[in-house]
Amino acid sequence: MLQISIISIGKTNEAYVKDGLDKYLKLLGKYAKLDWKELPDVKNGSKLPPNKLKEAEADLLLIHIPDKSFVFFLDEIGKTFNSIKFAEHFQKKSTEYSKIVFVIGGAYGLDERIKQKGEAISLSAMTFNHQIVRVILAEQLFRCFTIIHGTGYHH
Amino acid sequence: MLQISIISIGKTNEAYVKDGLDKYLKLLGKYAKLDWKELPDVKNGSKLPPNKLKEAEADLLLIHIPDKSFVFFLDEIGKTFNSIKFAEHFQKKSTEYSKIVFVIGGAYGLDERIKQKGEAISLSAMTFNHQIVRVILAEQLFRCFTIIHGTGYHH
Repeated sequence: MLQISIISIGKTNEAYVKDGLDKYLKLLGKYAKLDWKELPDVKNGSKLPPNKLKEAEADLLLIHIPDKSFVFFLDEIGKTFNSIKFAEHFQKKSTEYSKIVFVIGGAYGLDERIKQKGEAISLSAMTFNHQIVRVILAEQLFRCFTIIHGTGYHH
Repeated sequence: MLQISIISIGKTNEAYVKDGLDKYLKLLGKYAKLDWKELPDVKNGSKLPPNKLKEAEADLLLIHIPDKSFVFFLDEIGKTFNSIKFAEHFQKKSTEYSKIVFVIGGAYGLDERIKQKGEAISLSAMTFNHQIVRVILAEQLFRCFTIIHGTGYHH
């Protein structure tokens, strides 16, 4: 079974996001071995300038990105796909690599060291709250598997 | 105060979507008089072919779109904006019209009669669940007002 890690900075602190995530992570369990890692916020991060905060977040993230995995990271200016094209792209990567990692940065985005490790994908040109993004990604991954398996959720 | 109507097809039937909406509609109340209309699903709609269903949905929607309002409708192939450009565009429309309407279609999208009445905007090239889209739109509208008013939510 394909292994997927989703690594996000900061706890899911909104009840509605947690409930939405629970729903889609359960659905995804049918298709992949999913590991959702919520790394703690950087201590006193709110007092750091954005660049320093991103550096400290990258230090935490890098520990959790295994070698030989393929890394997608979410970035507003990353490549955009429609859901079907993304499913094709994801399927290709999942045959080439035994583990796929998705990285969701903090409120200010990601450090260059993380960006160099992977491929930037954009869920939208718009900025979404970095909590909501978790549900959107989980739903999109579920949609992705239903497209690959032809199980009729996607319109 | 600016009047905004958001008209969607079908009830919000997921608890987490309802909770997320509640959060953002409360926050939006500070900036606009918001009216969220959830029209009932078309009776026996699941037995209709998609085009017939969209026609029946359009009949319902048209009753609720006031004259002299500006209509945005959500469409995957609509125009994409980043959040700041969308805020500028929205602000312009909100000075030209006394009422702004957002239309969220059903699972198969919208009939041509609705499309002719407004401007297509895309939240993403990806297909999102038409329940989740409600929270995304509400959050994006809140973000939009905080950009217009410079109240420091948007990064």
